[in-house]
Amino acid sequence: MAVAVHKWVYRFDEGSTEMRDLLGGKGAGVAEMARAGMPVPPGFTITTEACRAYYADGAGSLPAGLWDQAMVALREVESRLGRAFGGAESPLLVSVRSGARISMPGMMDTILNLGLNEDSLGGLEAQTGDRRFALDAYRRLIQMFAKTVRGVAGEQFEEELEAARSRAGVQTDAELAPSDLEPLVHRFLEIYQAEAGEEFPRQVDVQLRLAVEAVFRSWQSERAIAYRRHEGIPDDLGTAVNVQAMVFGNLGDTSGTGVAFTRDPNTGAREIYGDYLPNAQGEDVVAGIRATLPISALRERQPETYRELTGYANRLEAHYRDVQDVEFTIERGRLWMLQTRTAKRTGEAAVNTAVDMVAEGLISREVAVLRVEPRQLEQVLHPRIDPAARAEVLARGVPAAPGAATGVAVFDPDTAAAWGREGRPVILVRISTSPEDVHGMIESGGILTSTGGTLSHAALVARGMGKPCIVGASGVRVDLAAKQLTAGGRVIAEGEELTIDGSTGAVYAGAVPTVAASQSPRLTTLLEWADAGRRLEVWANADYPRDAEKALANGAQGIGLCRTEHMFMEEDRLPIVQAMILASTREEREVELSKLLPIQREDFRGILRTMAGLPVVIRLIDPPLHEFLPEHEEVALHVARLCAAGADAAALEGPERLLNRVEELREANPMMGLRGCRLGILFPEITRMQVRAIMEAACALLAEGIDARPEVMVPLVGTVGEMSAQRREIEAVVAAVSAERGGTVPVRIGTMIEVPRAALAAAEIAGEAEFFSFGTNDLSQMTFAYSRDDAEAKFVTAYLEAGILASNPFETLDPVVVRLMSIAVEEGRQARPGLKVGICGEHGGDPASITRCHELGLDYVSCSPFRVPVARLSAAHAALRAEGA
Amino acid sequence: MAVAVHKWVYRFDEGSTEMRDLLGGKGAGVAEMARAGMPVPPGFTITTEACRAYYADGAGSLPAGLWDQAMVALREVESRLGRAFGGAESPLLVSVRSGARISMPGMMDTILNLGLNEDSLGGLEAQTGDRRFALDAYRRLIQMFAKTVRGVAGEQFEEELEAARSRAGVQTDAELAPSDLEPLVHRFLEIYQAEAGEEFPRQVDVQLRLAVEAVFRSWQSERAIAYRRHEGIPDDLGTAVNVQAMVFGNLGDTSGTGVAFTRDPNTGAREIYGDYLPNAQGEDVVAGIRATLPISALRERQPETYRELTGYANRLEAHYRDVQDVEFTIERGRLWMLQTRTAKRTGEAAVNTAVDMVAEGLISREVAVLRVEPRQLEQVLHPRIDPAARAEVLARGVPAAPGAATGVAVFDPDTAAAWGREGRPVILVRISTSPEDVHGMIESGGILTSTGGTLSHAALVARGMGKPCIVGASGVRVDLAAKQLTAGGRVIAEGEELTIDGSTGAVYAGAVPTVAASQSPRLTTLLEWADAGRRLEVWANADYPRDAEKALANGAQGIGLCRTEHMFMEEDRLPIVQAMILASTREEREVELSKLLPIQREDFRGILRTMAGLPVVIRLIDPPLHEFLPEHEEVALHVARLCAAGADAAALEGPERLLNRVEELREANPMMGLRGCRLGILFPEITRMQVRAIMEAACALLAEGIDARPEVMVPLVGTVGEMSAQRREIEAVVAAVSAERGGTVPVRIGTMIEVPRAALAAAEIAGEAEFFSFGTNDLSQMTFAYSRDDAEAKFVTAYLEAGILASNPFETLDPVVVRLMSIAVEEGRQARPGLKVGICGEHGGDPASITRCHELGLDYVSCSPFRVPVARLSAAHAALRAEGA
Repeated sequence: MAVAVHKWVYRFDEGSTEMRDLLGGKGAGVAEMARAGMPVPPGFTITTEACRAYYADGAGSLPAGLWDQAMVALREVESRLGRAFGGAESPLLVSVRSGARISMPGMMDTILNLGLNEDSLGGLEAQTGDRRFALDAYRRLIQMFAKTVRGVAGEQFEEELEAARSRAGVQTDAELAPSDLEPLVHRFLEIYQAEAGEEFPRQVDVQLRLAVEAVFRSWQSERAIAYRRHEGIPDDLGTAVNVQAMVFGNLGDTSGTGVAFTRDPNTGAREIYGDYLPNAQGEDVVAGIRATLPISALRERQPETYRELTGYANRLEAHYRDVQDVEFTIERGRLWMLQTRTAKRTGEAAVNTAVDMVAEGLISREVAVLRVEPRQLEQVLHPRIDPAARAEVLARGVPAAPGAATGVAVFDPDTAAAWGREGRPVILVRISTSPEDVHGMIESGGILTSTGGTLSHAALVARGMGKPCIVGASGVRVDLAAKQLTAGGRVIAEGEELTIDGSTGAVYAGAVPTVAASQSPRLTTLLEWADAGRRLEVWANADYPRDAEKALANGAQGIGLCRTEHMFMEEDRLPIVQAMILASTREEREVELSKLLPIQREDFRGILRTMAGLPVVIRLIDPPLHEFLPEHEEVALHVARLCAAGADAAALEGPERLLNRVEELREANPMMGLRGCRLGILFPEITRMQVRAIMEAACALLAEGIDARPEVMVPLVGTVGEMSAQRREIEAVVAAVSAERGGTVPVRIGTMIEVPRAALAAAEIAGEAEFFSFGTNDLSQMTFAYSRDDAEAKFVTAYLEAGILASNPFETLDPVVVRLMSIAVEEGRQARPGLKVGICGEHGGDPASITRCHELGLDYVSCSPFRVPVARLSAAHAALRAEGA
Repeated sequence: MAVAVHKWVYRFDEGSTEMRDLLGGKGAGVAEMARAGMPVPPGFTITTEACRAYYADGAGSLPAGLWDQAMVALREVESRLGRAFGGAESPLLVSVRSGARISMPGMMDTILNLGLNEDSLGGLEAQTGDRRFALDAYRRLIQMFAKTVRGVAGEQFEEELEAARSRAGVQTDAELAPSDLEPLVHRFLEIYQAEAGEEFPRQVDVQLRLAVEAVFRSWQSERAIAYRRHEGIPDDLGTAVNVQAMVFGNLGDTSGTGVAFTRDPNTGAREIYGDYLPNAQGEDVVAGIRATLPISALRERQPETYRELTGYANRLEAHYRDVQDVEFTIERGRLWMLQTRTAKRTGEAAVNTAVDMVAEGLISREVAVLRVEPRQLEQVLHPRIDPAARAEVLARGVPAAPGAATGVAVFDPDTAAAWGREGRPVILVRISTSPEDVHGMIESGGILTSTGGTLSHAALVARGMGKPCIVGASGVRVDLAAKQLTAGGRVIAEGEELTIDGSTGAVYAGAVPTVAASQSPRLTTLLEWADAGRRLEVWANADYPRDAEKALANGAQGIGLCRTEHMFMEEDRLPIVQAMILASTREEREVELSKLLPIQREDFRGILRTMAGLPVVIRLIDPPLHEFLPEHEEVALHVARLCAAGADAAALEGPERLLNRVEELREANPMMGLRGCRLGILFPEITRMQVRAIMEAACALLAEGIDARPEVMVPLVGTVGEMSAQRREIEAVVAAVSAERGGTVPVRIGTMIEVPRAALAAAEIAGEAEFFSFGTNDLSQMTFAYSRDDAEAKFVTAYLEAGILASNPFETLDPVVVRLMSIAVEEGRQARPGLKVGICGEHGGDPASITRCHELGLDYVSCSPFRVPVARLSAAHAALRAEGA
């Protein structure tokens, strides 16, 4: 009776790239090359299905029929090469490697040189003419086999090697002579026996079988499981096992090994690029003992082989329609193609290659857009440290705003502002920054703080300004009084140069060469293609006309967040704002507000003019008032010192009044305190002044024929009562100014959704709000109960390391925050069909979060002007991926 | 063609108490008395439906047919009394009063004495033989009519009255002679004409019609709308209008007016109780010019009438099966019943009456339970100011923990603790309290703070201890240095007596007499009936054995929250806790923790022993560590002073080390900082020590044969990763101690749900938690983004006043917080069927919130031991109401 036998084993020439699920990535790639007739060392793949079957019965045993099929395939390899597995004359050696559908680099096991025993050792020596090589291959096999198959740690082997080297008086293993290696092999066999409790298997079939099972087992190793958890790879995929004939690049001058890219991975230039090492094996390249040659060296030495190689490489690129990274070995003049995979590349290369390949007809525009990762675009958009530069890293901090900058160290904002205005490039170095530092930050080229996280003041402001920034550089000791920093044992004083890389968090002494940001026409083209593919609009957060200009230049379609309080912080306004806060009656406050009115009006006029024809969402005052005053402790210490110095009542009056007001405004948890619309409700005169400034600015522009489109946004709304109260105030001012000016500016009134309650009461609130803008910084804070000022330094970093959090919720939208947003979008739009919904939190510039925003059906994302291109690309990725492109 | 005419008007004897929706409360009550044959001044009710019809067409006009029906009913009144409306000989006067289904006291309008004009004035004089009375009735009509019908403010009338009094040289209106009143009436008619732009209507039908329409209009007055908003009364109910013949109690010695309660509203004693005023009208009683007599005076003066009255009153009580509050007037020996309604009563009377009425067979046990409002029970459970006491209120604050207490003022916790231990009754007066004040609070009889809200430290701790507490008494200036307070212009120094009423927020100077808390057997009976009716279990929050004993005595079925950090605050432990926090290595920390272990073990042993056989949920450490250290500013000022005083390095070392650590632990928003399970994860040794203490205590008790049932609760969990990490730590210690002791204590491990994210990730978290306990204090804080330390004082009070919030979310569960809880309950139980869910936030003792907990299907509520009876009753109310009882 014939039993239908399940196929567990595929020869390389039976597979193809479409069989990736069954054969794994490596198996499918090698199969594809084999099918295309390229010279691949023969071999076969045991399927992922076999791995699943291996685990299916719980015990872990090879499924019936597998081994017979493997042996048949092995015989075919022997016959193709005319070698015999375990043969004493012309032995076949094989490698056994894992290969899952999704690459898990370094996670699973590999064994090389299987098929060596005391018989075939001689054969290998005869075949290669190199006894040292054969012995070395054997001792490597024993060590690798012991570890992988029997779990024997490497220390004892390494100690023996060390002893052998010291006996021989040499530095490297490669210098060991056959006479050194022979006793070493014996010693290795003894260690194996002692540790594994059995002899090293001399039967090569047993070696192979144990190796295959070991690879299957490595799928369930702790580190592999942990890696899959981290990367979100399902546990039930299983791994394939590739058994392949060994070839050797170290058999003389006509042998060698190398890697070839089909285009330059740094620039995207269309020419073969790579490294070549004659008379060497792959692991010699990895060990880095010998310097590699450029691939052109192969062209000079073996032009035929070079032509053959480039022919194959170009065919592979055309076949995969993407840049390939090809590994090859030349064994005594014969080229063997070992592996092909999609090449990693820089941002610049990614952009250029993607656009070029469309021109070459290889890929569509949509595929080109998807070929460039948003993170790669970031590289391109900012200056970066020259990869060729050799510079000493003094310290590392949290990369908070991308780009590299060099400047002289300055430790206070006034000097930074002064020197910056004189045109000196400045790096502002602080322990942390506060709104009072902003004028110095504006004139600096980069910011470095020794404390804080990615949502600290320094980080937020720097990203908004597009300036490189490093925060939380705990290895940098900042001495503000002495005006110097100490890091990595070096002292940098005011006026001395340093360089920061806000993309990596590295701090360097002196000036390190940088590469300028790219402004290539190909980038423009790619972004235009991205725009065609996306559904989400991309707006920008901008507080000043200069930011709005940058946003427009980068393709922003509106301003999603204009923070009015930054305007309050500027030098000429802060005294008025402080006087307003210190006012003890509404009347006094209104006097100060009337001084602010013309200033705010001009601010709004500038930004509305710049954005003519596009929406500008202006948020009413948000931060707690005490942020505009000096810190409580500072004032208290000042008063205490005055008292100690015997100051009289008159001298104390002002400081004490300030202290009292600061004390009144003091809050245990200011983030959850008197701020946002709570201020606007308790002090409606502030709301009225701000709305009047907006309306007067808009009316004046309209009179000039400029299409001003202000929208008023109420912050920190949690209940519909707050929204309707603020809405009434706003509408009254809009009506009043319209009546005064005789014009009508249609002003939309909406709210931030940044308090969890607001998201859950969206239906009610949408009745009073014409648009929603998710303030996901605060929404994430409150949903997690994480104070963004402290959480990263205090515990979020530890949580990320311990795997308690999969990602930083202040960088990438948390799924539960997304759930809240989803409730708000759905219920808000049910209550008000067509409700416009956007996001203006930091997540609005984060690629993964932009995907979530697309899925949620938002109308737009708003981010820093400098991230607009990244957001445009991310939005296109989200849309194209959702369409299955 | 006959048209079916809609019935808009009901004679009193056509209605009944079941027709409350149509006739309003007053109309239905009067109708019920009329139906029962009691002597009610005849009249009729215009229905609430007519009011709705009045508004239906938008313009506000009486529906067709109504007026004709009213006139028919009026003719019947005339014929019953033998008087004529507007008649010159024996005139009928009527009152017009509103009467909605739900009482809206003082919100809507009433007009008395309608039917007076120049003709009938003489008739009234002849009828009553009292010209002064007739003229006074007329001028009152003009004034009331002007205000209600024409919106004429009362000032001009009052000025004329004032002028008349001064011309006559008298103090009160009652002393004005007819010769004074005559010109006044003319002047009133002139004012009416000038202000209303028309003559005062002499036609009495026009008077009546305008009055009826005015009452309908008053339904939509601003204050009525605002009241309905506040009380949640629908706008579309409408009001009925009652037109009733006037009777007069001021026609001589055989006339009079009064109020009778069918039982004593203070004690519930079963005897007629009330006030009587001979030869007077109801408004004289209200004006308080003459002192009323006890109702017994009527028995002596007019025994027949008294018997008639008490007969009616008792019949009404039997009919309504509840204590009645009856208004009556005697006109020349003839008793008229004007109104009957359910009597308001004290908590004591409510309890006693409810239990008595069950014994009398009037009501069921369920109805008896529903008759006592939880708020009334609170009165009974705490000492209160003697209602008879006359004392000056110095200031008012936020009532934070109920009950009254008298004691000597003390301004620091150490003195409070010392004097309290000596047996002196102490009131601790502070600006605010912190954990360092707790030892003083324990020994005080009451607490008064000049700042803070209902969730401030003082309020929370006082409620937990069952001590009267007032917070946020902003009229009290506390001078801690001088050890005195100033309030209401008085100074109270240390050692001087004061009295506080934590139920009302009133602060009194000196000792004010108080009434002790009731411990009546009838209360016990009522609570047993409540227990039979409820589904929710009632647990208590208790940190010490003495609290647990109180909880047990009050009927608690478990401890829902044992806060371990309060134990840390006690004098003997705080130095160890501080040393633990100041430890710079894990090893140092573990040394200090090992000192805490035996102390905590004894704490747990005490509470577990007390609660033998019942669950005790012990929460692991929750507050941020800096709470155990002195305040940053305090330490900074101390160091600054030391420096200023020229302290040397040795003297500075300790303080500076402390300052550094306090600085490290400092957070911008500690409520959202390093606390709860975040501490337990970063410092697992603290979790391990606490769980070991719990386990060792439980094992020791088990060895004694005591059924200890500890449950371990992890605070501030937001992600399943936190829960599983803490669970692993806890399980490891449980296993280790079980192994050491050779016993097994089944320990349930659960979590607080107090972070919004946890509620929305309940399904995941339930996979790792065996129970949920809603920490609704924090959950409300985070959901609203309101810091509970400040929000009430800074803006929540203003929001409540402005109607932006309907209730204080820290007192009564907000609907959106309830929505979050509902998601957590549903999804948590889906993931883990039978998941036990309770609440341990302050809301667990709030009656309205307990109703929500019942509806959510929670298993238990946990509250202060002192609120357990209130919670038992509230839980019964929720269950009985849900069943429609």
